[in-house]
Amino acid sequence: MERHVCAVCGNIHYVNPKIVVGSVCSWDGRILLCRRAIEPRRGFWTIPAGYLEEQETPQAGAAREAREEACAEIEIDTLLAVYSVPRISQVQLIYRATLASPQSAPGTESLETKLVTWEEIPWDELAFPSVHWALNHHRSVEGRNNFAPFSNP
Amino acid sequence: MERHVCAVCGNIHYVNPKIVVGSVCSWDGRILLCRRAIEPRRGFWTIPAGYLEEQETPQAGAAREAREEACAEIEIDTLLAVYSVPRISQVQLIYRATLASPQSAPGTESLETKLVTWEEIPWDELAFPSVHWALNHHRSVEGRNNFAPFSNP
Repeated sequence: MERHVCAVCGNIHYVNPKIVVGSVCSWDGRILLCRRAIEPRRGFWTIPAGYLEEQETPQAGAAREAREEACAEIEIDTLLAVYSVPRISQVQLIYRATLASPQSAPGTESLETKLVTWEEIPWDELAFPSVHWALNHHRSVEGRNNFAPFSNP
Repeated sequence: MERHVCAVCGNIHYVNPKIVVGSVCSWDGRILLCRRAIEPRRGFWTIPAGYLEEQETPQAGAAREAREEACAEIEIDTLLAVYSVPRISQVQLIYRATLASPQSAPGTESLETKLVTWEEIPWDELAFPSVHWALNHHRSVEGRNNFAPFSNP
């Protein structure tokens, strides 16, 4: 097994897969999107998501990301999907959530935020494949409450 | 935010929450348990579970743990639970799985393996709270196929 070595001193550090937490947040049938202010994929649209922090539950992390990226308060509903991107050692926990109000505003990592209907989703300007997946999976369980979370399509 | 510094050279290393993958594996109504050969909780019973490795999907990781700890081949069925232990920055993905055969044997991290009926589960000798949770949650969805995964009770 390959080990990760400190570039400065040569000491061995263990590197583990990372957990991304995010949410598809809706308000009255519309979905919250954020336009990325940072690389990778600056200028493209995404759902609020980011790395889980130490000593944080996944639900708390997803709510924090919505707050940081879209100044939005959300209520987590259920686990929508568990996607994995083994090439970059990433596991994504994506929740379904409801916005506390239709207000949102760009945080420091976003250029712009907006609520969109299904027809208004900018499919060609989405930041990552998993944003496509999450939006489609979200729609496929609309109105349903007890379902197994999706994985990579 | 607290940063993690290399003990040797003082370089900053980011530490992230860790992902544990595991499974409740059954064969003809009986469940696979492993008696731990390592600390913490050496001598206590657990389900096959351990840290997800780099570039591994959670399902592949859960299957690897069953192989390593119980010399068992399993087929992953569905996601049973997502438990989080924020105090130690851990997220556990626990799957429901079926054994390919009733054979199992202790791997290097186990003293003993066995298949037990519900009545035979050694409740007072289980290694961790999440083993209790997983066994109870597994039983509560017996025969059901489409359910939202459980979280901490």
